[in-house]
Amino acid sequence: MSELEELRNTIRSFSEARDWDQFHSPKNLVMALIVEAGELVEHFQWLKQSESQDLSPKKLEAVEEELADIFVYLIRIADKLDIDILEAAKKKILSNESKYPVEMVRGKAKKYTEY
Amino acid sequence: MSELEELRNTIRSFSEARDWDQFHSPKNLVMALIVEAGELVEHFQWLKQSESQDLSPKKLEAVEEELADIFVYLIRIADKLDIDILEAAKKKILSNESKYPVEMVRGKAKKYTEY
Amino acid sequence: MSELEELRNTIRSFSEARDWDQFHSPKNLVMALIVEAGELVEHFQWLKQSESQDLSPKKLEAVEEELADIFVYLIRIADKLDIDILEAAKKKILSNESKYPVEMVRGKAKKYTEY
Amino acid sequence: MSELEELRNTIRSFSEARDWDQFHSPKNLVMALIVEAGELVEHFQWLKQSESQDLSPKKLEAVEEELADIFVYLIRIADKLDIDILEAAKKKILSNESKYPVEMVRGKAKKYTEY
Repeated sequence: MSELEELRNTIRSFSEARDWDQFHSPKNLVMALIVEAGELVEHFQWLKQSESQDLSPKKLEAVEEELADIFVYLIRIADKLDIDILEAAKKKILSNESKYPVEMVRGKAKKYTEY
Repeated sequence: MSELEELRNTIRSFSEARDWDQFHSPKNLVMALIVEAGELVEHFQWLKQSESQDLSPKKLEAVEEELADIFVYLIRIADKLDIDILEAAKKKILSNESKYPVEMVRGKAKKYTEY
Repeated sequence: MSELEELRNTIRSFSEARDWDQFHSPKNLVMALIVEAGELVEHFQWLKQSESQDLSPKKLEAVEEELADIFVYLIRIADKLDIDILEAAKKKILSNESKYPVEMVRGKAKKYTEY
Repeated sequence: MSELEELRNTIRSFSEARDWDQFHSPKNLVMALIVEAGELVEHFQWLKQSESQDLSPKKLEAVEEELADIFVYLIRIADKLDIDILEAAKKKILSNESKYPVEMVRGKAKKYTEY
C-alpha cells in the first residue's frame, strides 16, 4: 500500500470510530477545508514577502499544523468522491505544462487566459 | 524516493523551468491555495448535501482538477517551508485522537474547545 | 454624510491612530478579509441547511461579529482603492438582472455561463 | 429608509423574483461569500504590496465587481439572519478599540491574544 493510501485509511478509521461519516458530505468537507485554508492565510496576512520566508520556529509549527489539516481534509474529500489525488495532481501538472509553455511564460505570472 | 517526494520534485522543476520561484513566497502561495479552495467550494455552494454526494461526471472532473490544484500548492508551500507534509498529517491525526476521544465525541460534531 | 461614509471615516481614524496604514496594502487587506470569511464559514460547516436557519443566540452573536469583521475590511479595501462600494453594488445588481433574466432562471441555481 | 436598507430590499426583490430564496440558506450563502472572496484574492495573489496599491484600470474594475459581490452576499446573509450589519460593525469597532489600545499596539500588527 502506498503512503497516501495508508494515510487515507487512517483518516477513514478515525472518522468511522467517531461516527463522523454522517457529517462528512463533500459539501461539508469542502467548507472545512477552506476554513483551514483561512487559518493558514491568517499566519501570513500582515507579513512582508521576505518575512513569510523566514518564520519563527513557533509560527512555523503553527503553519505546519494548518498544512496538515488541509491535507487531511483534501484526502478525505478525495476518498469520499473516489478520486485518486496523486493521479489527479500528475494529470494537472501535465495539463499545466501545455497551458504554460516555458518559452511563453518564463518569469511572468499571468493566468493562461491572459496570454 | 516516495511518491510525494517525486511529486514535489516535479512541481519544483515545473516552477524552476518557468522562473516562477520569484513569485512563490509562502505569502503568495497561501493566497494561491485559498483561491483554489474557493473554486472548489464554488462547485458545492448551491448543492444539497445529498447532491454533493452524487456529482455528474462533468462536475466530478472539474472537482478533481480543483483538488489537484490545492494539492499542488500544498506540496509547494511545504517544500518552500521545508515541512514534511506526510509526517505533519500523521502527527496531527495523533493529536486529534487525544483531543477527540471516541467515547466523548461519537456522533457529535463540535470543536474540541466546546467539550 | 451617508452612514457608509461615516463608517469608512471611523475605520480610517481607528487605523491611523494605531499607525496601521503601513500594513493595510490592498494585498494584505484582501487576505484579512478572506480569513474573516473563513471564520464565518466555520460556524456553518457541520450544520444542516435547516440548522443554519435557526442558530442559537450564542452562535448568532458570534456570526454577527464575523459579518462585522468582513464588513469592516470590505469598507477598508474600498477606501484604499477609492471605490464607492454602494455604487458598485447597485451596478452589479443591474448587471445581474440582465445576466439572469427572471423567465430563464426562475427556481434554478446555475451560473450564467451554464445557461 | 437608509441606503443600506434600500440595498437590502433591492437584493431581496431580485432573489424573490427568481425564486432563489430556496437556495439562500445561511449555510449556502456563506459559501457563496467566501467563493467571491477567493475571486477577490485571485487578483492580488502574485502582486507585490506596492503593485497592489497601483492597479490598472481594467484590474481595478474587476476588483470593484468582486467587492460588490461580497457586499451583496454580506447584506443578504445579514438579512436572512435578521442582523443589522451597520450596528454590528459599529459595535465591533468599539470592541476593537478596547482590545487594541493605541498606546499598546501603535505600529504593530499582532492579534490581541499575542499582547
